[in-house]
Amino acid sequence: MSNYSTRLHEAIKAKQTPTMVGIDPRWESLPPSIISAAEQRSGTQDEIVASAFEEFGCRLIDAIAPLVPVVKPQAAFFEQWGPHACVALARVIRHARKQGLIVLLDAKRGDIGSTATAYAHGYLAGEDPDSANWAADALTVNPYLGSDTLAPFFNVAKERRAGIYVLCKTSNPGSATFQDIAGPDGNLYETVAGVIEKLSAETADSGGYGCVGAVVGATYPEQLTKLRGKMPHVPLLVPGYGSQGGAAKDIDSAFDDNGLGAVVNNSRGINFAFSKSPYDQEFGADRWEDASIAATQRMIDDLAEHTTAGALR
Amino acid sequence: MSNYSTRLHEAIKAKQTPTMVGIDPRWESLPPSIISAAEQRSGTQDEIVASAFEEFGCRLIDAIAPLVPVVKPQAAFFEQWGPHACVALARVIRHARKQGLIVLLDAKRGDIGSTATAYAHGYLAGEDPDSANWAADALTVNPYLGSDTLAPFFNVAKERRAGIYVLCKTSNPGSATFQDIAGPDGNLYETVAGVIEKLSAETADSGGYGCVGAVVGATYPEQLTKLRGKMPHVPLLVPGYGSQGGAAKDIDSAFDDNGLGAVVNNSRGINFAFSKSPYDQEFGADRWEDASIAATQRMIDDLAEHTTAGALR
Repeated sequence: MSNYSTRLHEAIKAKQTPTMVGIDPRWESLPPSIISAAEQRSGTQDEIVASAFEEFGCRLIDAIAPLVPVVKPQAAFFEQWGPHACVALARVIRHARKQGLIVLLDAKRGDIGSTATAYAHGYLAGEDPDSANWAADALTVNPYLGSDTLAPFFNVAKERRAGIYVLCKTSNPGSATFQDIAGPDGNLYETVAGVIEKLSAETADSGGYGCVGAVVGATYPEQLTKLRGKMPHVPLLVPGYGSQGGAAKDIDSAFDDNGLGAVVNNSRGINFAFSKSPYDQEFGADRWEDASIAATQRMIDDLAEHTTAGALR
Repeated sequence: MSNYSTRLHEAIKAKQTPTMVGIDPRWESLPPSIISAAEQRSGTQDEIVASAFEEFGCRLIDAIAPLVPVVKPQAAFFEQWGPHACVALARVIRHARKQGLIVLLDAKRGDIGSTATAYAHGYLAGEDPDSANWAADALTVNPYLGSDTLAPFFNVAKERRAGIYVLCKTSNPGSATFQDIAGPDGNLYETVAGVIEKLSAETADSGGYGCVGAVVGATYPEQLTKLRGKMPHVPLLVPGYGSQGGAAKDIDSAFDDNGLGAVVNNSRGINFAFSKSPYDQEFGADRWEDASIAATQRMIDDLAEHTTAGALR
């Protein structure tokens, strides 16, 4: 029976690209037509925002679903607006699943024992969307609390053919504060990588990858190369492409010879392409979905031209 | 103007105890009367669970509000049941605020830049419950992503007179995996402690404590003593008392000479006291609130008798 990585790789091969689109709704950046339509509905401000987020998320998904294998909703932007927006998040996730997309929820959860189990049961639906209330295929997880934080997520992921992506070397400038601390087994992120590789190797199937992934930023190409080598059974989630400064050539080492083993995220550059050059001129706010499609296509081509992901074509 | 710690300490002095009650609803552990009342309402399973969690949380709050200064809802147990239970969580938080309690939401969030800002804006209401959708006074935060994870939480906390509690040395058996890694400035948790102390010292007011707290488990008394010394301006959140094995004497070093500087959490031991000896015999499931009150009073007395928190009386 195939695991999460094999399901992910089938989706990647079908779309011939490892491009992942983040779903990051921000009220102040939404297309004006979405905002004005939401404001015409009755309700409190948080209800209006929630309805705008749902419409934006679902229409963005409809626009890019034919192009990419996986989307990554960012829980923070929904949670910021309270429980109504959490309802919207759940609907956006279900909508993406119905469109045949793999859904990786970026919520960076982490807790101990039965509390971690509660998160895992609630978020990790894996193959069957109805097996968890949030219906995600995969979830980002924070390792700080230790090995017994990871075990419950790992067990549920294994059982439901879901995936987890453990934070390893993140894309932000301040990631060095703690992640780069040099210990007896290398930097902290290398110690974390060792734990991730061990868990994922246990669940690797004939595809060669297991159910435990790692988050490694495109903004640290040297570490990305080293960590890819240290974690041969681990699917990578590579944030930081585009807005954060990571370029396609920086990401090449994330892929294996078949162009598999990694997904590359772009959120702002695709969500709000309509307000960014050159798409603002070509499409403008009224054709925001076409702008997002064009930006997605450009990223797909960029990765195909400058990385081994071109082998997928 | 007084900061979060001073607000917290006023509440602790008013109740004469640093006891904190966790709000950890688990469907399978709820009093049977709550379950059967919820099952008589119409709705899907997740709606039924959400309504039971709201009733349980609010009634538990009503029972213990006269006794303790602060409650700690655990987000995971609500999130597990999907968005309806998130609505229940928001209501439970508001109810606790109305009862005059300080609400520390245990959600262990952590992310980078504008994403961390979104979490901070959504959760950290501080003094004015209406300034954030979730209305919490304080939030637990995970430091793994680094200094730029903490900055947005810190800035919002400072502005709103809210608090954050950064995970430092957690109570679980596996916390050593990464937190104890020995680096150039001591163990990882000591490096984290250094960052926490620096931030909190910046915001310390005449009470001597700032708005950045630290989570240090009762299950590691030696480290608790050392970390208290390293972080003189930092309010501590001490989990692990009771069910996890921490005893009052292990916690004594968490307090300053006035019995301030720390809150001690108990969740399961109070939430489900009705099913535990000796309260199961004395009260039973029908008088579950009286069982929770008795267990809370016992903890209050235990801390007063065996720690410097007795100075509050």
